[in-house]
Amino acid sequence: MRAVIMQDAKLRVEEIAEPVPGLGEVLVDVLACGICGSDLHCLAHAPDLNAATSVALGVELMDLTRPVVFGHEFVGRVAAYGPETSQRIPVGSRVVSMPALLREQTTFLGFGGPEVPGAYAERIVLSEALLIEVPDHLPTDVAALTEPLAVAYRTVAKADLGDHDVPLVIGCGPIGLALIAVLRLHGDRRIVAADYSPARRALASRLGADIVIDPAVESPYAAWLSAAATDDPAIMAPGTPVAGQLPLRQTVAFECVGAPGVIDQIIAGSPPGSRILVAGMCMTADTFHPAQAVLKEIDIRFAMMYTPQQFAETFAHLAASDFDVAPLLTGTVSMDQVADAFDRLANSPSDAKILLDPTR
Amino acid sequence: MRAVIMQDAKLRVEEIAEPVPGLGEVLVDVLACGICGSDLHCLAHAPDLNAATSVALGVELMDLTRPVVFGHEFVGRVAAYGPETSQRIPVGSRVVSMPALLREQTTFLGFGGPEVPGAYAERIVLSEALLIEVPDHLPTDVAALTEPLAVAYRTVAKADLGDHDVPLVIGCGPIGLALIAVLRLHGDRRIVAADYSPARRALASRLGADIVIDPAVESPYAAWLSAAATDDPAIMAPGTPVAGQLPLRQTVAFECVGAPGVIDQIIAGSPPGSRILVAGMCMTADTFHPAQAVLKEIDIRFAMMYTPQQFAETFAHLAASDFDVAPLLTGTVSMDQVADAFDRLANSPSDAKILLDPTR
Repeated sequence: MRAVIMQDAKLRVEEIAEPVPGLGEVLVDVLACGICGSDLHCLAHAPDLNAATSVALGVELMDLTRPVVFGHEFVGRVAAYGPETSQRIPVGSRVVSMPALLREQTTFLGFGGPEVPGAYAERIVLSEALLIEVPDHLPTDVAALTEPLAVAYRTVAKADLGDHDVPLVIGCGPIGLALIAVLRLHGDRRIVAADYSPARRALASRLGADIVIDPAVESPYAAWLSAAATDDPAIMAPGTPVAGQLPLRQTVAFECVGAPGVIDQIIAGSPPGSRILVAGMCMTADTFHPAQAVLKEIDIRFAMMYTPQQFAETFAHLAASDFDVAPLLTGTVSMDQVADAFDRLANSPSDAKILLDPTR
Repeated sequence: MRAVIMQDAKLRVEEIAEPVPGLGEVLVDVLACGICGSDLHCLAHAPDLNAATSVALGVELMDLTRPVVFGHEFVGRVAAYGPETSQRIPVGSRVVSMPALLREQTTFLGFGGPEVPGAYAERIVLSEALLIEVPDHLPTDVAALTEPLAVAYRTVAKADLGDHDVPLVIGCGPIGLALIAVLRLHGDRRIVAADYSPARRALASRLGADIVIDPAVESPYAAWLSAAATDDPAIMAPGTPVAGQLPLRQTVAFECVGAPGVIDQIIAGSPPGSRILVAGMCMTADTFHPAQAVLKEIDIRFAMMYTPQQFAETFAHLAASDFDVAPLLTGTVSMDQVADAFDRLANSPSDAKILLDPTR
């Protein structure tokens, strides 16, 4: 079968062996797979990422002596069942799954070699226990957003948001936009978002941000404080207000840029008692000022990986049409166009999520 | 009256005007006042601290054009009441208070000028509403530990510790030692602590640390992981265990050093899902690796200031003899000896809390 292979920081399309479902596993025809910022990171900085996961988690993310098949944001169609499966979902049905194989050692899909390919391929193998059937009314390209939305869902869950809290989203790339969509789930709170790109600001508005700021023109932090100001004692955040300011609702910032200096900038711009959720992935050393964070009693919570339950809850929201996430989809490409799509995503700020359709 | 004056990064004893209690205020004879690490910071780095609070909180901590009277960890004796007071506590009774005056603009004691002196002085003025009477059985020098213990109490409260969580205290200076005492309040959890100083390690043991590590000899992080390992599913922390390791209880680290590099070191040494409480105050820029914190989904919570409720709860624990904090007290000095005591605290790792007794 055909697959997009990553090796030596380059992508190429190549024939690889068909994967074979093992015990409890399913062979799935890939219908769509999102191109993720992690994939771009992996292409450009694979050794750095390996070093980081090696230090943090005790394992290298990828075996770089061999080709890697990316793709962890997928929708497929059940093609055949392996041995010892219950086959509760009919062959031919569309499915999503979190990108993991429940083998003796859990295997993450999308960072392995051609024998456990990610979904930049015609077919993949999944664990039957993790399959979620996609209902007929849900378009394939929307279902392909489950995984990135699950990351945002996890991040918002870690934020412990109260009904009156005021979120600020710094950076409206795919992560920031998915966060806005998830934040919008929770009713009528005012969402402030900031990005230098007019196209991304427009997407942020369409996905549900109420106040969208161009940081080149005005301060996102001033807009945030203004949105959070309140004279209603019932919804004020605990703590002493800063001299000369109105008391504030609880302020919660989301770092979705992943570049050095941004966390420090958010600490500097945050009022005392703020929470900062870090969803961006800064791969280099970074500088910040702990005394500022201490004096303001800031909480910084770093988020990355959802649970199977959170993945399923995210999908349930998608299936119930709770999100209007269609604006996130900005293109579909064939395997031969994946390398170009990586360039587009790295260089054009008007793209959000580009899908690979391996059947094209 | 006599007071210790700070000016131009030097301490001297001098006569200043008697403070006069305003509406709702009380004149108090100071019996004891702890010398705090903040006071040492203020003496050595007053302009830096002013710059930090100016950025963080919009106000300079001190007016450095004038003398400052330190002292915010005090016990006193009610000498006289000002106007509009209820006088529920008899004159002559011993009292503690959080170091604040409830004036139109809340005034923090211990960082102001001679007209609102801190307790490095014979007398201070306090707000009657904040007074807590010290019962006869509680020694004055122990009651003087209320304020630093309240800081630790606040930090532990922010840590949201479960019964089976395993704390690691990095740095056993006064903050780390107070944290160990507060952590010990909560029953039978195993407390791991680390410090290079043998004297401080001995104090850590006396205050209740179970496993006390010399980082020059062995890794505090290895000892922490070992103390946290469990095969009881009922008390395992959520999340995927690291390959090749036993599952862990929830791990919570306390940064009590306040030097650059320590937060990054704790992130590197922490297992995934750890919480880090930062109680140390690093005044310089600091470097860390956000990708490590993201990959491990670390929470970093910075703590500084307790609420009046937390101050009162801390005092209630002291009065109930829940703490055995006498080992924290390593000396008492007169006003003329305060400058020497600052030198001792800055240079000798065997001191923990030195008290000023202005009646000497």
